[in-house]
Amino acid sequence: MRCALIAIGNELLSGRVVNTNGAFLAKELDQLGFSGTQHSALPDEEKIVQKAVQEALEQVDLVIVTGGLGSTLDDVTKQAVAHLFDVSFQYNAEVKEDLVKRYGERGRLLEGYSLVPEGAQVLLNPVGAAPGLVFHRGNALLILLPGVPHEAQELFKQRVVPYLHRHFGTLAKQFQEAVFFCKLSENVVDPLLRELSREFPQLSFGIYPFHATLRVEIKGRDQREIFLAKQRLVARFSLHVYESVDGTIERAIHQLFIDQKKTLAIAESCTGGKIAERLTSIGGASTYFLGSIVCYSDAMKQNILGVSEATLRAHGAVSREVVQEMLKGLFEKTEADVALAISGIAGPTGGSPSKPIGTIWLAFGERGGKSYSATFQAFGDRYNIIFWGANVALGALYCAVAYGKNLFSGEALYTQTT
Amino acid sequence: MRCALIAIGNELLSGRVVNTNGAFLAKELDQLGFSGTQHSALPDEEKIVQKAVQEALEQVDLVIVTGGLGSTLDDVTKQAVAHLFDVSFQYNAEVKEDLVKRYGERGRLLEGYSLVPEGAQVLLNPVGAAPGLVFHRGNALLILLPGVPHEAQELFKQRVVPYLHRHFGTLAKQFQEAVFFCKLSENVVDPLLRELSREFPQLSFGIYPFHATLRVEIKGRDQREIFLAKQRLVARFSLHVYESVDGTIERAIHQLFIDQKKTLAIAESCTGGKIAERLTSIGGASTYFLGSIVCYSDAMKQNILGVSEATLRAHGAVSREVVQEMLKGLFEKTEADVALAISGIAGPTGGSPSKPIGTIWLAFGERGGKSYSATFQAFGDRYNIIFWGANVALGALYCAVAYGKNLFSGEALYTQTT
Repeated sequence: MRCALIAIGNELLSGRVVNTNGAFLAKELDQLGFSGTQHSALPDEEKIVQKAVQEALEQVDLVIVTGGLGSTLDDVTKQAVAHLFDVSFQYNAEVKEDLVKRYGERGRLLEGYSLVPEGAQVLLNPVGAAPGLVFHRGNALLILLPGVPHEAQELFKQRVVPYLHRHFGTLAKQFQEAVFFCKLSENVVDPLLRELSREFPQLSFGIYPFHATLRVEIKGRDQREIFLAKQRLVARFSLHVYESVDGTIERAIHQLFIDQKKTLAIAESCTGGKIAERLTSIGGASTYFLGSIVCYSDAMKQNILGVSEATLRAHGAVSREVVQEMLKGLFEKTEADVALAISGIAGPTGGSPSKPIGTIWLAFGERGGKSYSATFQAFGDRYNIIFWGANVALGALYCAVAYGKNLFSGEALYTQTT
Repeated sequence: MRCALIAIGNELLSGRVVNTNGAFLAKELDQLGFSGTQHSALPDEEKIVQKAVQEALEQVDLVIVTGGLGSTLDDVTKQAVAHLFDVSFQYNAEVKEDLVKRYGERGRLLEGYSLVPEGAQVLLNPVGAAPGLVFHRGNALLILLPGVPHEAQELFKQRVVPYLHRHFGTLAKQFQEAVFFCKLSENVVDPLLRELSREFPQLSFGIYPFHATLRVEIKGRDQREIFLAKQRLVARFSLHVYESVDGTIERAIHQLFIDQKKTLAIAESCTGGKIAERLTSIGGASTYFLGSIVCYSDAMKQNILGVSEATLRAHGAVSREVVQEMLKGLFEKTEADVALAISGIAGPTGGSPSKPIGTIWLAFGERGGKSYSATFQAFGDRYNIIFWGANVALGALYCAVAYGKNLFSGEALYTQTT
């Protein structure tokens, strides 16, 4: 099955807005078994839109157009399609009713959205005003969606996907599973994936490293095969696996700590609040997350966490000794069950031969249990070092709490018994 | 002048990679006076690429193709163009030499990159292996660039822009200035911009709100007119203007504090480290930024910042009284010259009729000077509330430190005299 995506809007052509709908829809359609033949971004000009839609309908099975569905002067998509199919406009009662139901009196001002070309099927917009519109043209399907990414995406997930399944009865069902790893190199996983590829020739495997984490995707049409392959993969690297509904390590930590009813406090130097910001980007983080001491200065390490001036002077802020004292300070100053401390050199300045830019020291542990520390070398620019450092820290934390193991090459430093 | 952009690569069509070159090039070309007529993303298929390039060359003055310039099987762009123009390939001595110069012995392995279609002019790649290629076809110009964004962008800036200026001798020079505001509604700026539009009919004005900040763009061909219009705009809203080389409020704070030789400490509750993370994303932040207490729990507000339990109980964590005590704690526990404290309800739960989701309390001030507090109502989802809250806080801070004024509708709370 072939599909074409067309995005309408001058703001895309001037570069002011990035066409994120394209990548989103392409990925979703890919999983449904559609292969993309072309993405286009076109200006708000009726003739150009009409011609592009016509050409695409002649070439593929499914054409999705995003944008230009509003009711102002520069919204031309509905007009272009009405002219192409030579039909007039009608008020659609279902849309009208839905708008009044959801927007109350304001809904009457949105009447323009219920004006749809004759013969269109409507897909009610669950989050905005403009409905999606579906047209059949020979064997091809044309779907118009609003351009606002949130609306296009919700409409697609809630209305278009079920519609496609109904319409293309023979829709090749493609299943997909992803496994997420921390502290695991793609080179280590690769041989097993090659082995699995030979064993399950119908499945396809993809490895996607992302700042010290790794996502392995398994795709295919046989769910049982996918399950078996996934099982083998998980079994081999079980201590590196993290469970996360959205694939992020912060989501994994969130769920782990809530499940285990543990609380967390952290101290961040080089990551500058990045770890806290990511953990708190998830609603409900306050259930387990007590807070972070972003001690970007030596003075704050001393005054708030009680790191000693002598230690700072003897070993420098980026050292095992300092992250250990930061960790100790966290256990003393907060009531956290688990704590994590990180200090490093994010660059672009501040490196030295013995501590190059990208040097990171980490300490983590549970109150009354073992604590660990370890050092890592991050690469790339400041952004990469901060992101990588945050992921390594969260990965280390996950493995320690989920599996009681320190996979991060550090050694046990001190044991507290309460 | 009209231009078309074509991006080549299966990874774009599957949605695995977002076509960021498109937006970058479109923005740059827009400033050079080119108007985009179409962006396309196409698969790695020679015939399709060939046809698209041919059609584009018939319609516009400039066609830029990104991607598919490597030397592996799936790189088809050079082939497609060679077939379209019916020319053969030749080794280009300049490219060969440049590769050896930059890559040493490895350069010899990259020989494939010096194989270019006859008649092509080469633009040496300053950061990667594949050179850009330029073809003249009637009055139209065809430029091929590698797909790696960093390479495409550097090649464009360093080689293509000068080339375009030389080639299109009459290239309409378009100038552009941007002014950045905090705490200013677009509705307040709009009347002045309409006035300026009448006065300077050759200039175009754009207003772009972004999470409680505002960017106004002035474009035109007469630099003096732009200067005069900008002057009027800045004069009218002078206390809202922030200076920032990249337009972000964090960059403005960074420069302001370094210039004024002041230090900053903050306490974040609802923003969860977002403010610290943004300030520290800029290299050299440690010059002025001491750190942030991300006190996500009541216990941390008490233990680290000395907020009293009675205050928390009487007024709740999101209240004037609590942010005042957080601010006081910052001045006591750190040596910061300037401090900022924020507490709010980011949602999706935790709201009440008197304090709905999006309620934000802010306190800020200078040691020994006035301190202020104010409340705001943010809207949208958790992400928006956090982002908006961070920007309002940074905007308030900027105005207070740069202009000694509290524009943020709060009242002076207490005055410290040292």
